[in-house]
Amino acid sequence: MSELSNEYPTHDPEWVKDMHADHYLQSWSKQGGRPRVITGASGSWFWDSDGKRYLDFQSQLVNANMGHQHPKIVQAIKDQADKLCYIGPAMGSDVRSELAAIMNEITPPNITSTFFTTGGSAANEIAIRLARHKTGRTKIIARYRSYHGATGGTLSLTGDPRHHLTRADMPGVVRMLDPYTYRLPTGHTDPAHCPVAQGGPHLEELLMYENPNTVAAVILETVVGTNGIIVPPDGYLQSIRETCNKYGILLICDEVMAGFGRTGKWFAVDHWGVEPDIITSAKGINSGYVPLGTMSVSQELHDWLRETPLPGGLTYAGHPLACASGIAAIRAMQEEDTLNYATQMGARMREELAKLAEKHPSIGDIRGLGMFNGIELVKNRETREPLVPFAAKGADAKPMSDMMAFAMNEGLYLSFYSNVIRLTPPLNISEEDMMHGLEILDRTLEIADRECV
Amino acid sequence: MSELSNEYPTHDPEWVKDMHADHYLQSWSKQGGRPRVITGASGSWFWDSDGKRYLDFQSQLVNANMGHQHPKIVQAIKDQADKLCYIGPAMGSDVRSELAAIMNEITPPNITSTFFTTGGSAANEIAIRLARHKTGRTKIIARYRSYHGATGGTLSLTGDPRHHLTRADMPGVVRMLDPYTYRLPTGHTDPAHCPVAQGGPHLEELLMYENPNTVAAVILETVVGTNGIIVPPDGYLQSIRETCNKYGILLICDEVMAGFGRTGKWFAVDHWGVEPDIITSAKGINSGYVPLGTMSVSQELHDWLRETPLPGGLTYAGHPLACASGIAAIRAMQEEDTLNYATQMGARMREELAKLAEKHPSIGDIRGLGMFNGIELVKNRETREPLVPFAAKGADAKPMSDMMAFAMNEGLYLSFYSNVIRLTPPLNISEEDMMHGLEILDRTLEIADRECV
Ligand SMILES: Cc1ncc(COP(=O)(O)O)c(C=O)c1O
Ligand SMILES: Cc1ncc(COP(=O)(O)O)c(C=O)c1O
Repeated sequence: MSELSNEYPTHDPEWVKDMHADHYLQSWSKQGGRPRVITGASGSWFWDSDGKRYLDFQSQLVNANMGHQHPKIVQAIKDQADKLCYIGPAMGSDVRSELAAIMNEITPPNITSTFFTTGGSAANEIAIRLARHKTGRTKIIARYRSYHGATGGTLSLTGDPRHHLTRADMPGVVRMLDPYTYRLPTGHTDPAHCPVAQGGPHLEELLMYENPNTVAAVILETVVGTNGIIVPPDGYLQSIRETCNKYGILLICDEVMAGFGRTGKWFAVDHWGVEPDIITSAKGINSGYVPLGTMSVSQELHDWLRETPLPGGLTYAGHPLACASGIAAIRAMQEEDTLNYATQMGARMREELAKLAEKHPSIGDIRGLGMFNGIELVKNRETREPLVPFAAKGADAKPMSDMMAFAMNEGLYLSFYSNVIRLTPPLNISEEDMMHGLEILDRTLEIADRECV
Repeated sequence: MSELSNEYPTHDPEWVKDMHADHYLQSWSKQGGRPRVITGASGSWFWDSDGKRYLDFQSQLVNANMGHQHPKIVQAIKDQADKLCYIGPAMGSDVRSELAAIMNEITPPNITSTFFTTGGSAANEIAIRLARHKTGRTKIIARYRSYHGATGGTLSLTGDPRHHLTRADMPGVVRMLDPYTYRLPTGHTDPAHCPVAQGGPHLEELLMYENPNTVAAVILETVVGTNGIIVPPDGYLQSIRETCNKYGILLICDEVMAGFGRTGKWFAVDHWGVEPDIITSAKGINSGYVPLGTMSVSQELHDWLRETPLPGGLTYAGHPLACASGIAAIRAMQEEDTLNYATQMGARMREELAKLAEKHPSIGDIRGLGMFNGIELVKNRETREPLVPFAAKGADAKPMSDMMAFAMNEGLYLSFYSNVIRLTPPLNISEEDMMHGLEILDRTLEIADRECV
């Protein structure tokens, strides 16, 4: 233990960079870099200590659905801070009851009750544990193009290469292929004839091999986020739901990214009228202003939990400050008609992307639902050869990282995974800002076009 | 999706109870209960919708180290809310750099860098994954009387009966016995001759069976919290450290409960001058006002992470609002000389408990360090027969739950696990309040005395 200094030059950006490089550990990366220092943000924009402004076409990690520093959410946090920051999870609290009541209203009709966590990983952890207890079975079926979190169970479920990092996978994970219609994993050319893209038939085949009586749940991202903005074909989710019903398998929809208006509905499942047994969320619920996640369960599960204790808990379950921010964010979305606005602007974005595709041979596919959009880049539209390999990093990903750097320099914050650029600005971005971002994207894509053959 | 109502009677306590019972899922419990509705809190007190006040002798879940609604922490949250609630974890931010710099100062000299999570579970998850990567080994040695969290990996590490709930344990967990000197697990009567209580010798024996080259880390609560406030004998931790060094095994000290002044030092390891490779914390870092946890690593690990990416990440890693509250809480502890105060008041509490022991035959053992105290209750001091069985629940735990109910009725908030009552008020509780609580405890213990034979 050393002495604690009293004075820090907290506003000197060079000091902030030094401390970041020497004492702060950064997610998923090598340490020691000196970062951009962000000094403020508002709406769809943030800026750094050099006064440079960036248009946030990612909503950071697809969480700032209502943009940065939304005044209603900020005010609710300040009001609740004055009132009661924290009380233990078993106590009654007006804000946790109110958010629970709101969740009951905006989730699908069968979903009635919510456990509040501190983020998406913790929400998925309790979801799979609950599914195992309810069914008395162990296996969980998850997909490859997926990210479910960074904890022991959720990283084991994650299909993208980050799951190679567990070094001691939770037992019981079984893989299912993805409804990735642009590149059907079975070699079909028509999704309508591909069991994987239909959902149920593929799941049925796996269950035949696995024994359905050993499978507790299927977990999937209703619309795949990080791993490429994959929207399932109509009928897919219904078909998965039916197959699950047939065998008493629970369906867990991970809507950590897709939920809370990102697709233009409260939850992406609403597009297909499907009722999962469990929905998990985080991110958009309060735009990330206070760490918060949710696991919401069906009336049937809730009734079962009246007799059997919930197999989980967290010190910060139902955190009052977080709940207050969630209430404010959801009310703001309602008051500002955000779901409809996002639906319109998202469609408008895809129209503009279609125009870009006419100019840029590197655009292989344009995908999305609401404001959850992406473009998949290719070297050649005929062969669909990806611009960079799956999960490419470092030198292999150079054309992609060059594009990110170019855009950032032009004041546009973008991100990519494999050969897909994510286009997920705040749901309430102005049309003018969106067009401005797309104009920079237009110039950015020239870097990709140079790779085309 | 249903419509979202505009109006809720948010301040009607009956409505709050109804919504809690019907739509809110509560940690580790059966659902459907109608809770006390907490409407406010200040310092060591909180109160409910009936206007009844309770003295918080638990600091909720041993997190409100600076008490409720500490004005400096509340103000810091409000100021940061106005400035910047959230920015992605890879960006530079004054508050995350400042908290990282403070952590470097207050952790043991070898510890230099911190990854900020949303709580204790997530901190332990990244700790064990990092240990596995650094060593290239898989096994983790953990103890029985322990709680490390509710996620896949951390619940597998947890030794108390909640780990029976995993249903699919993370592979590689090996159990070590606890330095529980009041009931030596080996039948010794003198801790000085018991390998388990000495630490290193017990660990050596296990390693002989397990093969040290397969063991990545030992994880332990420096002072055991939930599972009975177990303070290791002097020399224990040093001996574990030496054994770990001998075999290249990392030592992870879980100080989620014990850290941040709870024992009268910033970290409990400071009592023995031991330098772990990794320390995890949460709770007391900001008194729980915003979800926050930490994994702090040695310079050696940090240097290794300059070449190898950190095998983890979270959307809310390094959350600015949480970091701002952590800075304010640590500064307040420094300004108010909280560590010394807690040391004195803790000693004072144990003196008073010793007096209670003269009156109450049910007090078998008084244990603690700083403000981290507990009393172990027995039916008989000679035989040390526990007042209730290990991890008793429901009817088996009746004398304990009767005591909690009696105390709550008298306005004192207590908690128990097995036959141990936790006495962990805010570190800055006034002497008068503490004496008031102990007076109620005195009367409460009559319930236990009735079980004595
Ligand atoms: C679909 C999905 N699930 C789970 C998570 C994990 O959430 P968190 O980082 O809050 O733990 C993420 C985060 O990106 C996600 O996109
Ligand atoms: C020692 C210890 N470790 C880890 C945890 C888990 O922390 P959290 O509930 O914030 O995930 C706790 C919580 O009580 C704890 O006491």
